Amino acid sequence: ALTELLQEFHFADVAELLEELNTEDATYLVKLLDSEITSEALMELDDDSRERILDNLSPSEIADELEEMDTDDAADIIAELDDDIQKQVIDHIEDEEHAADIVDLLRYDEDTAGGLMAKELVRVKETWTVAGCVREMRRQAENVTRVHSIYVTDKQGKLKGRLSLKDLLTAPEKSHISDIYIPKVDYVNVHTEGEEVARIMQKYDLEAIPVVDDNGILVGRVTIDDIVDFIKEEAEKDYQMAAGISEDVEADDSIWQLTRARLPWLILALIGGFVSVSVLGTFSGAMADHAALFFFVPLIAAMAGNVGVQSSAIVLQGLANDSLKGSLFKRLIKEVLLSLLNGLILSIILVVGGMFLLGLDLLFGVTIAISLISVIVTAALIGTFVPIMLDKRGIDPAMATGPFITTSNDICGILIYFTIAKLILGF
Amino acid sequence: ALTELLQEFHFADVAELLEELNTEDATYLVKLLDSEITSEALMELDDDSRERILDNLSPSEIADELEEMDTDDAADIIAELDDDIQKQVIDHIEDEEHAADIVDLLRYDEDTAGGLMAKELVRVKETWTVAGCVREMRRQAENVTRVHSIYVTDKQGKLKGRLSLKDLLTAPEKSHISDIYIPKVDYVNVHTEGEEVARIMQKYDLEAIPVVDDNGILVGRVTIDDIVDFIKEEAEKDYQMAAGISEDVEADDSIWQLTRARLPWLILALIGGFVSVSVLGTFSGAMADHAALFFFVPLIAAMAGNVGVQSSAIVLQGLANDSLKGSLFKRLIKEVLLSLLNGLILSIILVVGGMFLLGLDLLFGVTIAISLISVIVTAALIGTFVPIMLDKRGIDPAMATGPFITTSNDICGILIYFTIAKLILGF
Ligand SMILES: [Mg+2]
Ligand SMILES: [Mg+2]
Ligand SMILES: [Mg+2]
Ligand SMILES: [Mg+2]
Ligand SMILES: [Mg+2]
Ligand SMILES: [Mg+2]
Ligand SMILES: [Mg+2]
Ligand SMILES: [Mg+2]
Ligand SMILES: [Mg+2]
Ligand SMILES: [Mg+2]
Ligand SMILES: [Mg+2]
Ligand SMILES: [Mg+2]
Ligand SMILES: [Mg+2]
Repeated sequence: ALTELLQEFHFADVAELLEELNTEDATYLVKLLDSEITSEALMELDDDSRERILDNLSPSEIADELEEMDTDDAADIIAELDDDIQKQVIDHIEDEEHAADIVDLLRYDEDTAGGLMAKELVRVKETWTVAGCVREMRRQAENVTRVHSIYVTDKQGKLKGRLSLKDLLTAPEKSHISDIYIPKVDYVNVHTEGEEVARIMQKYDLEAIPVVDDNGILVGRVTIDDIVDFIKEEAEKDYQMAAGISEDVEADDSIWQLTRARLPWLILALIGGFVSVSVLGTFSGAMADHAALFFFVPLIAAMAGNVGVQSSAIVLQGLANDSLKGSLFKRLIKEVLLSLLNGLILSIILVVGGMFLLGLDLLFGVTIAISLISVIVTAALIGTFVPIMLDKRGIDPAMATGPFITTSNDICGILIYFTIAKLILGF
Repeated sequence: ALTELLQEFHFADVAELLEELNTEDATYLVKLLDSEITSEALMELDDDSRERILDNLSPSEIADELEEMDTDDAADIIAELDDDIQKQVIDHIEDEEHAADIVDLLRYDEDTAGGLMAKELVRVKETWTVAGCVREMRRQAENVTRVHSIYVTDKQGKLKGRLSLKDLLTAPEKSHISDIYIPKVDYVNVHTEGEEVARIMQKYDLEAIPVVDDNGILVGRVTIDDIVDFIKEEAEKDYQMAAGISEDVEADDSIWQLTRARLPWLILALIGGFVSVSVLGTFSGAMADHAALFFFVPLIAAMAGNVGVQSSAIVLQGLANDSLKGSLFKRLIKEVLLSLLNGLILSIILVVGGMFLLGLDLLFGVTIAISLISVIVTAALIGTFVPIMLDKRGIDPAMATGPFITTSNDICGILIYFTIAKLILGF
């Protein structure tokens, strides 16, 4: 009775249930329920939970699940398995065409159109009649959850255009596909980057996009549900990267996984800290007469860090959206003006506050103010320049966020601060 | 000839062209080209560019554009106009039903299902036959770009279920809708938050979701293309917020807009800097005998800041995805263990490095090491606790990132550091 009840659940809800259960119970449930539901539910799990369950299934049980999955999902699952099990699982898949499609998809890199596409789609030849097309479409559509567009190819399988279900419903039965199809169709190549696929689908409001190989042959299609997942994951990775977390982790991951993602950036910051200790050491001569200079070090470092992170965040988003227009020089000039304005306002607050609240003398106040402005402008320039440079050299500019920018700006900021102080106060 | 050429362009490409042109030329182009294209192109522009162009159009010219838009987009445009122009534009819309639909949509908050939905959809009554339904559907589908699902209502308009185009194609002509429709349908209320709508559509892989009012009457539907835009925008806002940028700005916005978004957080950091100056001032007695303590201040502050940002980023993502399981207490214990592990490794590096590279004596090294561990654990706790607390109190936890976390961690870190040093070294 419980089985029947669960059978009625939506796969996404079964997935939530599986996440709650311990591995043994979850495995039991997967074996018990119809693969039609559990296969979809397995896809919704996070990688770790899924791995735990699959470890407890035999190759033939895994094959049963894959049998029910779309080819894109099945290929993703197989790619997660150990090499020796991969082959056994594939051999257990009864539907040979399905198995061949899955094996074909394994060739493509995860973050490309080939890695995101499924083989399931409805295709018709341009020479067919509408009546024949409807017949054929009904047959093909059995394996396709949502039809979206019907893709039109020539005899060799080259993508020629598309047809909407609506067009098919409203066309006279005897007309030929070649008379009614839309020859203009957006498509991507199997090697197109996932981010580019997402950008195209978002720009043109597409729910599916056909994928062709280097010869223009239609080989699959990417659907918007997978692109929504992709966009979300990429955004989460970018967010984590900006916070100094380098692997895709979740709050519920193990302490060891979290350490591996977080510690490298902390070590980088620690090394940067060593450098700033040395820099401060070289200015120790100022301690006798200008002790207060050292009290302002965290304030200067904090301003440098915050401004740098702000600048780099805006530049990184511009790079990600391909919306950075104009030359690097113009952009740097703008950042200089912007940070001059911000620095000026902040310096005035600092000097007025410092003189009234902390009783600083004017010369000291002016020293701090000039340093602050210089530090802010430099930090803004570093935050702008570094990601653009990395991007131009083909390195992922997202490396230049959070810990990296704050660490380099801490060091530069302190150096500039004491150099200016030395020039004005002399020590 | 140029007009004809541009007429063939996809609206998204016309939009890119409009962004490149100056306001005068862009306005000219909008007036010249068919509203069928320019209306869609206007929707793709960023708010500022669109505002500049609309400022140069008369109410009747704006109405011409709105006439061609889906109701959701038209309502968004009207909401951006000044109050006195809003009414004039609405009066100029010739299609009265369209105008009424737009006015209706203006009632809803931008970030709710009501604010995201369009009135365009295909609806049939459960009592109809398939043949009648196909006829009616063809009529309604004229105004609907993509049909997705056909929604089934009772006589009063209450949502009862849905029907796919595929089902309609494969059903016998004489059957009644009530025999073939799927009574299980996901839907949202007009007041459901946009983030919740996005979560449901992503979870169940939906391309459209019907929206009902408080009486269960079908009033509109939200489509996935608008949800993709929504998800992207929210992710960008979160990313900027984490970097201390509080308004939705782009690299190409004016210096004044950028200052308004960035300066408030810098002022917060400056005030925090003042506090740290005061804290350091109270420990100035240590300068004579333990000058090196002051050299380590930026290192300690940087570690506190980085750890705090890492912890808060993971917690914030967990909150956003509703995936934080277990009690607050358990989560804090986990963060303590994680940060103890990280702190221990970093302290060993620090002591060994400090003694060999900087020639520190052992007692001083131990002081710094104990301080570093304490500071890291505290920073992790603050980074975890603050967003969870804000969330529990109904305040947007995203406030607790970047500048806020680094500033409070700078201060706490320095305070803990000097307190421990005073206890061990005595000054
Ligand atoms: Mg099963
Ligand atoms: Mg794949
Ligand atoms: Mg779009
Ligand atoms: Mg759109
Ligand atoms: Mg898929
Ligand atoms: Mg990326
Ligand atoms: Mg026009
Ligand atoms: Mg709206
Ligand atoms: Mg999904
Ligand atoms: Mg899915
Ligand atoms: Mg829309
Ligand atoms: Mg949010
Ligand atoms: Mg800092």
